[in-house]
Amino acid sequence: MVTRAGIVVTGTEVLTGRVADRNGPWLAEQLRGLGVDVGHVVVVGDRPDDLRSALSFLVGTGADLVITTGGLGPTADDLTAQVVGEFQGRPSAVDPELEQRVAQVVARLMARRGWRADAAATAAGVRKQALVPDGATVLEPVGTAPGLVVPPAADRTGPPVVVLPGPPAELRGMWPAAVAAAPARAALAGAAELRQETLRLWGTLEAQLAATLRELEPGLAGLEITTCLREGELEVVTRFPADAQVVYDRFAADLAERYAGTLFSTGPGLDELVGAALAERGLRVATGESCTGGLLAARLTERPGSSTSVFGGVVAYANSAKEQLLGVPAAVLAEHGAVSAEVARALADGARGRFGADIGVGITGVAGPGGGSAEKPVGTVHLCVVGPDGASSRALALPGSRSTVRNRSVTMAMHLLRELLLGGPPA
Amino acid sequence: MVTRAGIVVTGTEVLTGRVADRNGPWLAEQLRGLGVDVGHVVVVGDRPDDLRSALSFLVGTGADLVITTGGLGPTADDLTAQVVGEFQGRPSAVDPELEQRVAQVVARLMARRGWRADAAATAAGVRKQALVPDGATVLEPVGTAPGLVVPPAADRTGPPVVVLPGPPAELRGMWPAAVAAAPARAALAGAAELRQETLRLWGTLEAQLAATLRELEPGLAGLEITTCLREGELEVVTRFPADAQVVYDRFAADLAERYAGTLFSTGPGLDELVGAALAERGLRVATGESCTGGLLAARLTERPGSSTSVFGGVVAYANSAKEQLLGVPAAVLAEHGAVSAEVARALADGARGRFGADIGVGITGVAGPGGGSAEKPVGTVHLCVVGPDGASSRALALPGSRSTVRNRSVTMAMHLLRELLLGGPPA
Repeated sequence: MVTRAGIVVTGTEVLTGRVADRNGPWLAEQLRGLGVDVGHVVVVGDRPDDLRSALSFLVGTGADLVITTGGLGPTADDLTAQVVGEFQGRPSAVDPELEQRVAQVVARLMARRGWRADAAATAAGVRKQALVPDGATVLEPVGTAPGLVVPPAADRTGPPVVVLPGPPAELRGMWPAAVAAAPARAALAGAAELRQETLRLWGTLEAQLAATLRELEPGLAGLEITTCLREGELEVVTRFPADAQVVYDRFAADLAERYAGTLFSTGPGLDELVGAALAERGLRVATGESCTGGLLAARLTERPGSSTSVFGGVVAYANSAKEQLLGVPAAVLAEHGAVSAEVARALADGARGRFGADIGVGITGVAGPGGGSAEKPVGTVHLCVVGPDGASSRALALPGSRSTVRNRSVTMAMHLLRELLLGGPPA
Repeated sequence: MVTRAGIVVTGTEVLTGRVADRNGPWLAEQLRGLGVDVGHVVVVGDRPDDLRSALSFLVGTGADLVITTGGLGPTADDLTAQVVGEFQGRPSAVDPELEQRVAQVVARLMARRGWRADAAATAAGVRKQALVPDGATVLEPVGTAPGLVVPPAADRTGPPVVVLPGPPAELRGMWPAAVAAAPARAALAGAAELRQETLRLWGTLEAQLAATLRELEPGLAGLEITTCLREGELEVVTRFPADAQVVYDRFAADLAERYAGTLFSTGPGLDELVGAALAERGLRVATGESCTGGLLAARLTERPGSSTSVFGGVVAYANSAKEQLLGVPAAVLAEHGAVSAEVARALADGARGRFGADIGVGITGVAGPGGGSAEKPVGTVHLCVVGPDGASSRALALPGSRSTVRNRSVTMAMHLLRELLLGGPPA
């Protein structure tokens, strides 16, 4: 029997997209690590009825554990704790000791920020956050909000509900205590290891892979395979119980043979591959960006420890900046225009030279929505990577919005770096 | 009667967080514009049973319209069209003309990318994508996948299901045709305008605002108010029918008076405010970033048309880059260290000078996880904004991960820019 969990993400701000949910996916991944399969993540606004119906739904799908995130703040629209308490048949009351601990945390926080607030107002918010359903396990606050593990009342059946705060750092900090609480431990006791592996291809059509999967199907018992096309990359993610490892290994070897020309990773993502290769070979990179405005530098420096292999970069939007900060010759700009293969090369050379780096990357293009012409329409992007052994370039005609063009350009630059550092399928 | 819709986002890659869902929030916002309230967004993996239970749940909540996204690709795990057809009691069959149109699109796509694929494999994928439930309206493909509007079979009741592809650009391109289809039009016919307004505060504690809302509550009939604390900013979002406009105006005026010192926007977000102020005043900005690695430049250039007010920036990770590209004096680096108020100021001055900009922004800090010391622990960040009339600085001690520290630093820099350009609450 597979152990299953369901997740409710609360918050009108998530439902309407003002805040992107990072908790559902993070929890799904943690649960997978514990051998627990997540069937559904339900996003609801701050409305008691909608939260109740989401809880009923997940319990109805046979979930062994239900987790909620968010709705634990001091405002009246934060109502998760009370609704979950009622749902499990456990009325809530203020826990005076918890109230005191939360009050201390809030006081410290306000002192640090130098904020002032009405004492009665603050106390009311604190009291709300210290409401605990009868018989629930309290998870100590990481921020100001305590979490809860709420089993069904003695006269009811159903899974326990773990109530966690919305801010990702608080939720993550509280997670170990949540899974250690007795009702959660009991719910997870039967879970068996669930493995997950990823293969990444660059340059294979999804339809082609689909045909291969259909052909191999009879030999894939025990594997749950999903494919995902993202920014030109085809990801093949397989989940399987430990006893299907042999089946997976055969499948992975089979794909590696059939797609030798396009498979570029049997695990790590593009950024990890590039970052590890730079570190391993002791090479340093610098960037000269125009239309991507710093996104490539930001992506390269996202990895912890990247300071040893990323010297920096110049975002040169204005032509004068291209000339003065990266030494792009005025004549090249005049002759070929700022968006040209020649300028991409000059940006890469300039970044490499000015920072004294081993590798320079240049990007110039028209991200739109304005700035396009008949000759160089929106989506025209030129990329160049210059390394110790030479240069490699690409000219792209990308469809899509400003944000799509910028992000795709950066991904292509990462693939050029991958190709330069590791070989494999051409970017 | 409020018209309600429910959304199902399909895709194991979304459920497990490998791809962030952008469709649910976008659709929720479009529907709000049509006066339709979205109660739930359900994320499910690529499993027929889970998709079916999600559809049943949303129909059970009384939704007048159900929308699915994703699962229309050529691979066997893309199964939305068939499942929805069965759910509505409408068996699927290949539409030969649609099959031909999809085949043409696929052929063009492959030619453009220079990819080769087995003809039979491609044809099988195309055939799958041309499966149409009996009596459904076909929405012409924007990418390769057609969408569908599937009403319940004649002998059934329930809302129509709109089936849209997963890639955001395809989904958005298809949306006008989806809402124009007769069954969707009928479902939306009764919807009345639903307005939404946002107030933004900087420096008010959520508990304080909660107390104010409790106090004002009797006079807020017809308003649905939610508050959200994000990166130090408190957002107050209110949704209301047109006839509650007067109530909202009074509420907004009341908050503006009570929070005159912290309310910085009655609508536009921080980036929009800063971008508009730069454009309006004809000021140009340049950045000198260390720990944020280009994120500030990327954020400033995200806005269309930003090239007129953003000259560029330098990402100076290495000290040598700080010296050579931004003229940070070696003596200042030696005396105060790279992470110091003095270096933040020198980065801002250097960026302003080298790019010939009106405003320079400097950021230096320890983003972690390594690089911290007792004196300058991880999360220590110094910011400086230098404008024509002087400079303003901040020293931060930020909690959280590398990514949190980087993003919070950039947000603080945007607030410093806002304060410089527009006044209002101190950053």
